[in-house]
Amino acid sequence: MAEEVMLLDFWPSPFGMRVRIALREKGVDFDLREEDLSNKSPLLLEMNPVHKQIPVLVHSGKPVSESLVMVQYIDETWGGRSPLLPSDPYERARARFWADYVDKKTYLVGRMVWLSTGEAQEAAKEEYIECLKVLEGELGDKAYFGGERFGYVDVSLIPFYSWFYSLEESANFSIAEECPKLVAWAERCMQRESVAKSLPDQYKVHNFLLELKKKLQAQ
Amino acid sequence: MAEEVMLLDFWPSPFGMRVRIALREKGVDFDLREEDLSNKSPLLLEMNPVHKQIPVLVHSGKPVSESLVMVQYIDETWGGRSPLLPSDPYERARARFWADYVDKKTYLVGRMVWLSTGEAQEAAKEEYIECLKVLEGELGDKAYFGGERFGYVDVSLIPFYSWFYSLEESANFSIAEECPKLVAWAERCMQRESVAKSLPDQYKVHNFLLELKKKLQAQ
Repeated sequence: MAEEVMLLDFWPSPFGMRVRIALREKGVDFDLREEDLSNKSPLLLEMNPVHKQIPVLVHSGKPVSESLVMVQYIDETWGGRSPLLPSDPYERARARFWADYVDKKTYLVGRMVWLSTGEAQEAAKEEYIECLKVLEGELGDKAYFGGERFGYVDVSLIPFYSWFYSLEESANFSIAEECPKLVAWAERCMQRESVAKSLPDQYKVHNFLLELKKKLQAQ
Repeated sequence: MAEEVMLLDFWPSPFGMRVRIALREKGVDFDLREEDLSNKSPLLLEMNPVHKQIPVLVHSGKPVSESLVMVQYIDETWGGRSPLLPSDPYERARARFWADYVDKKTYLVGRMVWLSTGEAQEAAKEEYIECLKVLEGELGDKAYFGGERFGYVDVSLIPFYSWFYSLEESANFSIAEECPKLVAWAERCMQRESVAKSLPDQYKVHNFLLELKKKLQAQ
């Protein structure tokens, strides 16, 4: 089978954005297939029968799913250009630790900020700010999480920047005030073509999330 | 600093067991420090300030945490003997996918089986059996998840075998009846010295979990 790279995706998904960024960092051409999540394609169900979720990378007919697994696969398969994980095992373990932190904390707590109201939302907001401050502490004065070079932790975290505006609007706070260095890092990442092309407009994300919230609350 | 390997651990932790198994597969001598989780040591708080949880591997003074990150670190650092991850990037992605599945499903659903009662427990039990059947399907007729060789997915999943008896007792079912091939796989893994030495006795785990449940319910 010819080398063919396809990404089954859904535009506001931070997990899909990670994969788009990684492929673009490597200069890999790919066929982006937008899924309708209310009517999933037979291809998606065939390629990810366990979770039935996007994103799925299909490389020469073979599927890879789970975004961090996909980013590592991309880094190992198209290794020469723009390495994402450090070459040293200890530094690689640190990068994996922080990407795991982003997965376990930033997404789930951010979702709570966006979906909850009243006191629950205040608590979620405090926890979210704390998570971001932990990440900001790890970033320190470095340009990127791994140092001078854009890498794995950056790829894992930057997609959530496209959700910041919506979280700020729904819970009335300013991430730039709380974590100025983290926002400066995000703006630095946004100057990369791979990132700018992969993240949707924050207002478009906000409108999407408002609609989704209405639907979830109606259920 | 001299090469020194220390594991901050707690004996019934399936996550700690993963690390013990990986170190023993590699033939690495290590100093196992049992933690009192109700009175965590200053060393644990220093070595894992973000999550403050065991297990933590301390290698020549440098900490690594999160069990799957640690197993990968061990595989990359002591690479020559008993490789755990496959060398092919696609097979490596598959192994990471299944280890992630174990993390996201087997532990959390198993915990629900053990902590819940009545209808909630019945639902959790059904979901748990379904998870195990998915894993059994992936195992198929192979000796181990990766084929003929004991590897990363086996290391990730086998610790939960030491909790099977306690789950069966608390929810009145038989995993061997539901998933005979998976239990045969577990018994095969238990014939390895690395595994047999790292998993506690199932009755001891059961007594520990009964006591813990009482404490949690009293709170």
